[in-house]
Amino acid sequence: MPSTAGTASATKVLPEPPGLPEPLPEPAVEELRLEAVLGALSDPLRLTIVRKLLLESEQFDHSCGWFGFDRPKSSLTHHFKALREAGVTRQRQYGLERRSHVRVDDLNARFPGLLYLVAAWTPEV
Amino acid sequence: MPSTAGTASATKVLPEPPGLPEPLPEPAVEELRLEAVLGALSDPLRLTIVRKLLLESEQFDHSCGWFGFDRPKSSLTHHFKALREAGVTRQRQYGLERRSHVRVDDLNARFPGLLYLVAAWTPEV
Repeated sequence: MPSTAGTASATKVLPEPPGLPEPLPEPAVEELRLEAVLGALSDPLRLTIVRKLLLESEQFDHSCGWFGFDRPKSSLTHHFKALREAGVTRQRQYGLERRSHVRVDDLNARFPGLLYLVAAWTPEV
Repeated sequence: MPSTAGTASATKVLPEPPGLPEPLPEPAVEELRLEAVLGALSDPLRLTIVRKLLLESEQFDHSCGWFGFDRPKSSLTHHFKALREAGVTRQRQYGLERRSHVRVDDLNARFPGLLYLVAAWTPEV
């Protein structure tokens, strides 16, 4: 089994900058439910989002434009909301834009090893 | 992070008896897809099924009657099939009855740590 150190070294956790907007509504860490988290991660697009945030984040959080998906914005909005409501990501509103990052510490605390599986996932060819 | 040893000690893997019927159709271990496995596990009833098989199996595999669910048989059949088709469980036909067990080795090989999370899950109160 891969060690936590392996997960941590693959995952980029960028420091929280000062003066962030409040997070949008989300479950507290103790309210996270495995069935909801797995449901949110049971979709290739949402796995792609979380994996890219884990491995390629260039900033603390990212708007949906950063991902470069060729999809209608309304569909992407739905997926980002599903991830937030399950507790996988935290979203903040910056003016007209929402940006997301992965709740790495909360997920590692409640579901150890799960983010390793997401980081190791590859899309079906 | 919990070790594989911790997972193994909680999980009962009973030896395969001789003369078993052939398994029903299922994905091979190398065909298992994380998104499909997580989707199959994103439901409280299916988590209950897998957790009970992991922790309380009394035989190699179990029919749906063993679980004691107060649900229509057709609904249970659907859930057991979803678990098999995602590759979480293996089902065999014994006469009129189907029995399931968890593909512990295959899941540990492909998604290390995932079954630990299932074994540690508890239903919402």
